Amino acid sequence: MSMLKNILVGQSGGPTSVINSSLYGVIEEGLRNKEKIGTVYGMVHGIEGFLAGNFINLSEVADNEPIDRLKITPASFLGSCRYMLPEDLGDNVYDKLFDTFAQMNIGYVFYIGGNDSMDTVSKLSRVALLKKSDIRFIGVPKTIDNDLVMTDHTPGYGSTAKYVASTLKEIILDATCYAHPSVTIVELMGRHAGWVTAASVLARTEYSRNPYLIYMPEHAFDMEEFKKSLKAALEQETAVVVCVSEGIADKDGRFICEYADAASVDGFGHKMLTGCGKYLENYVKAEFGIKCRSIELNLPQRCSSLLASATDIDEAEKAGKAAVVAALDGETGKMITFVRDDTNGYEINYGLADVNDICNKEKKFPAEWITADGTDISDEYIKYVRPLIQGTNIAEYSDGVPVHLKPAYYR
Amino acid sequence: MSMLKNILVGQSGGPTSVINSSLYGVIEEGLRNKEKIGTVYGMVHGIEGFLAGNFINLSEVADNEPIDRLKITPASFLGSCRYMLPEDLGDNVYDKLFDTFAQMNIGYVFYIGGNDSMDTVSKLSRVALLKKSDIRFIGVPKTIDNDLVMTDHTPGYGSTAKYVASTLKEIILDATCYAHPSVTIVELMGRHAGWVTAASVLARTEYSRNPYLIYMPEHAFDMEEFKKSLKAALEQETAVVVCVSEGIADKDGRFICEYADAASVDGFGHKMLTGCGKYLENYVKAEFGIKCRSIELNLPQRCSSLLASATDIDEAEKAGKAAVVAALDGETGKMITFVRDDTNGYEINYGLADVNDICNKEKKFPAEWITADGTDISDEYIKYVRPLIQGTNIAEYSDGVPVHLKPAYYR
Repeated sequence: MSMLKNILVGQSGGPTSVINSSLYGVIEEGLRNKEKIGTVYGMVHGIEGFLAGNFINLSEVADNEPIDRLKITPASFLGSCRYMLPEDLGDNVYDKLFDTFAQMNIGYVFYIGGNDSMDTVSKLSRVALLKKSDIRFIGVPKTIDNDLVMTDHTPGYGSTAKYVASTLKEIILDATCYAHPSVTIVELMGRHAGWVTAASVLARTEYSRNPYLIYMPEHAFDMEEFKKSLKAALEQETAVVVCVSEGIADKDGRFICEYADAASVDGFGHKMLTGCGKYLENYVKAEFGIKCRSIELNLPQRCSSLLASATDIDEAEKAGKAAVVAALDGETGKMITFVRDDTNGYEINYGLADVNDICNKEKKFPAEWITADGTDISDEYIKYVRPLIQGTNIAEYSDGVPVHLKPAYYR
Repeated sequence: MSMLKNILVGQSGGPTSVINSSLYGVIEEGLRNKEKIGTVYGMVHGIEGFLAGNFINLSEVADNEPIDRLKITPASFLGSCRYMLPEDLGDNVYDKLFDTFAQMNIGYVFYIGGNDSMDTVSKLSRVALLKKSDIRFIGVPKTIDNDLVMTDHTPGYGSTAKYVASTLKEIILDATCYAHPSVTIVELMGRHAGWVTAASVLARTEYSRNPYLIYMPEHAFDMEEFKKSLKAALEQETAVVVCVSEGIADKDGRFICEYADAASVDGFGHKMLTGCGKYLENYVKAEFGIKCRSIELNLPQRCSSLLASATDIDEAEKAGKAAVVAALDGETGKMITFVRDDTNGYEINYGLADVNDICNKEKKFPAEWITADGTDISDEYIKYVRPLIQGTNIAEYSDGVPVHLKPAYYR
């Protein structure tokens, strides 16, 4: 075994279409620093899988396969987990982990994920201090929710915003092509923060205000107000498209989707869980007596590599590389942040922040970017998001279907 | 007004991502035949809108705008309708139509659509005979359902098949990335014919059998059998992906989605209509006690121009052109058909069939292409469909979002 320290990298939480670009960045930068780094290992299924002895030699994969395909492979190549390390830093799970790190001669650990994953980086770096270990732990941000604090935005969000805008533009054309009144309700991801829903505003054109109404979880939803706004909208447009966050809630904090769940039971007596879109569809049909359809964009919002933003892919890769550079510079317990510089057009610089200031916090959509009546998004947001959706992914196809790198967990 | 006869073209029924390519073909071939054809007009919102006096001068649009953008514009540029002409060919609606045709000096009428639209072509051509009118009526096929008889396939189907295969490949990567057992149910379009659902088989890879189970409307669905098959699947794959047609029904012909509708009522006392995917999700959660998610791919299946098949776009355009050629040749009451020639690889020739042999009929998915237990699709289908999904659409983007031609009904 080489005396050089090795890299260990993991992915955690919900997948995005660019989380593998960050992984690619870590691997590439690791391999490039031949004089400082031995082997690049990957945890399979995050820290949970690693604890169960599941890892992969990524240097070997890079030797034998076109790993730049990671940039066109959505979801977590390494597999993911939703696992929180114990609060008690004296727990023997940490002894087990640091023993394995030592056996594998790990010098640098990178964890690509969102709030919960940064909690893992925080705990591991604090345990390292207690154990006087010199292993360095760096977090690489990832989440379509764009809800991490201390960073201009997060990798994954730009692609989701582009997916939402592009797909909605197509849905609006479909939904408006009949001459008879109709309502189409599109439910978007984001339980607590409306960043994904806000992107629907990008689907507007000079000839149609659709999506006519946009409802965010940051603004209390009221059924009567909705009815009034929809009535007014139907006086302006034959076919009205409404976008709602899955997390819209009333002034008492009760989710609109829960309105349906309380009363809905299927033929076997099982409680039916439905989204707020389906609930509102039902409401509109009953109250307005017109054609209404609801659409939940669902998983493709976070895994559509084919419609990813090239800017997002590029930034995600650079975030991975910046993490390796930071670790080699001696940093630990930090997350890579995006710092926007608008001096000469849009530019991103890669900074560092203490993970303890980030984990378990949530960046809401700014209240001042939502109009007073809670049905629209301001131009400030458009100015903020526009650069993040620039450029299109160049997919690779074989026999008519997209090509991906075979996931680590299928090896 | 020129003494040359004019063209009138309309679109009808559910949109597809390539119905505008057929329209482009009609316009292009119409404009090319300057010595035979005067102006190309379009019905706005199909025959229903035309009856209300709604039409557009497409020759003028072609003079002023890049109409090749029709090939990257999904849904119905002209607007659509779901309107059946009267069975009584003596109804005065026909007098009104033929009077207008005469006033506009129409010589050729093209109607782009599915079964119901071919019924319109049939009736109009029969009325023409009765009225001794020499106006020629030609149907251009269109439907993602691929259920028109007498044609190898229909424009629109290839793009939907490609969308389903590509998107499912991405969803499968997302759905399988955790180490814990889960079931993902994907509901696909096709109430009576399983062509769209069958395309999910194209998402399989050499490393994963997912979608593990595929359920078609042509095979009776049984809840107990489903439970057994799913149990067996979960013994082979940690994360099982199941594809179901929206139209799966039991041996008595009752739709599975109706199982839920019978019992499900929301908080306002309104009956909740849910799809079979949501119903099965609920069933799996209750019976297996594991994580289960259902996804309805919904409208993007038929309007995702961004993931369209280049072969489909090309064939749709050629079908439009072939319609104009046929009309100029003196044909009427016919639909353009696709005749496959496999002698030297895949090739399509454009034929003609009597619309009366096509309208109101339905081509089911062949029973022999479904495996005996009703959970899988045979290789014969893959051989049939593979050529239809070749090639990718080249989208045009502006400021990060796709560019479309402004629909006629917004003018």
